[in-house]
Amino acid sequence: MKATILSVGTELLFGQVTNTNTVYLSQQLNLLGIDVMYHSTVGDNPERLADMMKRAFEDCDLVLTTGGLGPTQDDLTKEIACDVMGDELRPHKESAERMKIYFDKLGREMTENNWKQTLFPTRAHVFPNDMGTAPGFALADEKGKIVICMPGPPREMVHMFETYVSPYLEEKTEAAIYYRMLRCFGIGESKLETELLDLIDGQTDPTLATYAKDGECCVRVASKRRTKGEARRAVDEMTEKVKARVGTYIYSYDDENLADVVVRKLKEQNVSIACAESCTGGWFAKTLTDLPGVSSVFDRGIVTYSNRAKVEELGVSQETLDAHGAVSRETAVEMAQGLKQKTGCRMCLSVTGIAGPDGGTEEKPVGLIYFCAILDELMICRKSEMRRMGRAWNRNYAVLNMLDMANELLGK
Amino acid sequence: MKATILSVGTELLFGQVTNTNTVYLSQQLNLLGIDVMYHSTVGDNPERLADMMKRAFEDCDLVLTTGGLGPTQDDLTKEIACDVMGDELRPHKESAERMKIYFDKLGREMTENNWKQTLFPTRAHVFPNDMGTAPGFALADEKGKIVICMPGPPREMVHMFETYVSPYLEEKTEAAIYYRMLRCFGIGESKLETELLDLIDGQTDPTLATYAKDGECCVRVASKRRTKGEARRAVDEMTEKVKARVGTYIYSYDDENLADVVVRKLKEQNVSIACAESCTGGWFAKTLTDLPGVSSVFDRGIVTYSNRAKVEELGVSQETLDAHGAVSRETAVEMAQGLKQKTGCRMCLSVTGIAGPDGGTEEKPVGLIYFCAILDELMICRKSEMRRMGRAWNRNYAVLNMLDMANELLGK
Repeated sequence: MKATILSVGTELLFGQVTNTNTVYLSQQLNLLGIDVMYHSTVGDNPERLADMMKRAFEDCDLVLTTGGLGPTQDDLTKEIACDVMGDELRPHKESAERMKIYFDKLGREMTENNWKQTLFPTRAHVFPNDMGTAPGFALADEKGKIVICMPGPPREMVHMFETYVSPYLEEKTEAAIYYRMLRCFGIGESKLETELLDLIDGQTDPTLATYAKDGECCVRVASKRRTKGEARRAVDEMTEKVKARVGTYIYSYDDENLADVVVRKLKEQNVSIACAESCTGGWFAKTLTDLPGVSSVFDRGIVTYSNRAKVEELGVSQETLDAHGAVSRETAVEMAQGLKQKTGCRMCLSVTGIAGPDGGTEEKPVGLIYFCAILDELMICRKSEMRRMGRAWNRNYAVLNMLDMANELLGK
Repeated sequence: MKATILSVGTELLFGQVTNTNTVYLSQQLNLLGIDVMYHSTVGDNPERLADMMKRAFEDCDLVLTTGGLGPTQDDLTKEIACDVMGDELRPHKESAERMKIYFDKLGREMTENNWKQTLFPTRAHVFPNDMGTAPGFALADEKGKIVICMPGPPREMVHMFETYVSPYLEEKTEAAIYYRMLRCFGIGESKLETELLDLIDGQTDPTLATYAKDGECCVRVASKRRTKGEARRAVDEMTEKVKARVGTYIYSYDDENLADVVVRKLKEQNVSIACAESCTGGWFAKTLTDLPGVSSVFDRGIVTYSNRAKVEELGVSQETLDAHGAVSRETAVEMAQGLKQKTGCRMCLSVTGIAGPDGGTEEKPVGLIYFCAILDELMICRKSEMRRMGRAWNRNYAVLNMLDMANELLGK
């Protein structure tokens, strides 16, 4: 099945909004085994929209639209789709009822415009909108071409796709899809690919694909079989093979991110945590506190950006700073030990390094970073040397290293 | 002039990459007075790419492509564009020389593939790539249709557009464009729009437009005249009118972001800074240290997430915590005062609040945040109550408030 993703909205053509819907839908359609041939964007203009939709059906069997389902006069996607597919709009009873309930709850009157949102093509398969007022729908013509129209706001669209559209498409593609996203840290994408090369090249199902992003790597294991059970078994078997080869780098078999994994384990094991940051400048603490409810384990963070702060806050000795410099294994160790002594937290992490772009020397280049992590009586140290990456990358990579060390101490 | 933005790359159709180029180019073309009619994305497939380009020229005078200029066999944008515009490829001397110098610097041998990158259509206007190996170019046909091809990596594309493509297009559009982006904090977009409504509606040049993003607002003042000088004068005059109405909220007349403004002033006035964060959990410190070279003014940050940390690190009194709670004006003041006493930094900021989604009460709801900022003998306090926004939004908004208070103390 070949598809075009068609985004509707003048605001996109003005560059006022980044089109994240297209990325999401591309990923999801590829997972369903549907080939995405084109992305197109058009403004709120009925002729151009109709023209785009007809053109898309020249090459494709499936067109997914986002946007233009709202209550205003500009919103014409439904009308155009209905027209292109040779159908007509009629009141849709269930949608009208849902809409009434929605407005009753809000205690607001429905306007004439909102009634417009309860009209649908007679052959339409309507998808409810659990997050807003504009339902979506699928509409097929006699040749089997399908248009699927969804609302533009990403929150509404993603929920509708996951809950209603994806199952609808699975049925159409007559295949059950199952996949797992294995997330890795500490291995580069090319090495990961090399380790798995025969598994990637050697077979058509399950398929393996690797991705790299911001210092991390993923392996997607996907299978398309007659039943979900079969697909799942195939994916699980292949996952075991991948685990046997690169399992030490895998921190999640379920697409969890590293901070979530670490905070979950801290809570499960009732381990309190504190951090002492130099080059990451609070990014590690920010990453932990992005997660709601982390206050049950996270006690405090100290951002010791100056040397004076390292001495005063963490008891790093001036002798160590003089002899080894602020960016050294010795300083990282004293930072973590000082933090442990001060806070009594069971887990204490430290980081000190040169994020760049300035401040590097021949001996200590930009990208050199030292880490120390303590859990009770255990201590591990790490050194990272990534040249030629930028300041933001280096700092993010340092945060990931700290999380990875915490994960190692908590038991992978 | 009507334009299509055409993105080339199979990775986009897989959803492996978010297409930020299109947003950037849409904004820039609109600023140049060029109407963006369509966005299209196509994979690395020569027939479909040629087809897309021809179709785009049916409606548009200008097609901008990104991607597909690299050295590999997949990269065919140049060849297709040349073909569609009825030209042929020839070696381009300057590009060949630049390429040789580039590889000499790296100490690497040029491959046959790289030579491919120095061939250009005979009528092409070549744009050097100062950030990578693939130059871009503009190519017009006899009917005046123009294709502009640029590399895909955003860093390379943006630099090329700003430096070479934008001046090229300004000449073609026979208009001089000048604009300013005024950045505001502390006023909502609807209030901002109301204050400026007659200026927005009343005239065609200069144009005023407001934007809102993540707790901030912008006003774009743009003019298109016969000369840059005229356009600039018109923009400056209008800027004065805007300033007279909403000047107290404007922190930059040149699209600087708030952290940059604050750090610039800290450096100019030689003011040292430290911060004590509760609900923002290190985000403020991270925001400052995102900027290279901030170590000359930023001393340290203390993330006191637990009450114990507030007492131990900042000397907040247990009585204050018991009487007023951790989220209170009193606690915010003691946090900032304690930090000042401890560090001696001239500027000390504090924040404590309820970021959500949990932890709110009737009396102290999610979104309630207290701030304190001290500069030498001056102190200001602030309270923010934003209901119904999410955790990330609340935390980001708190960081912006801290920056805004610092800016106020340093002199707007």
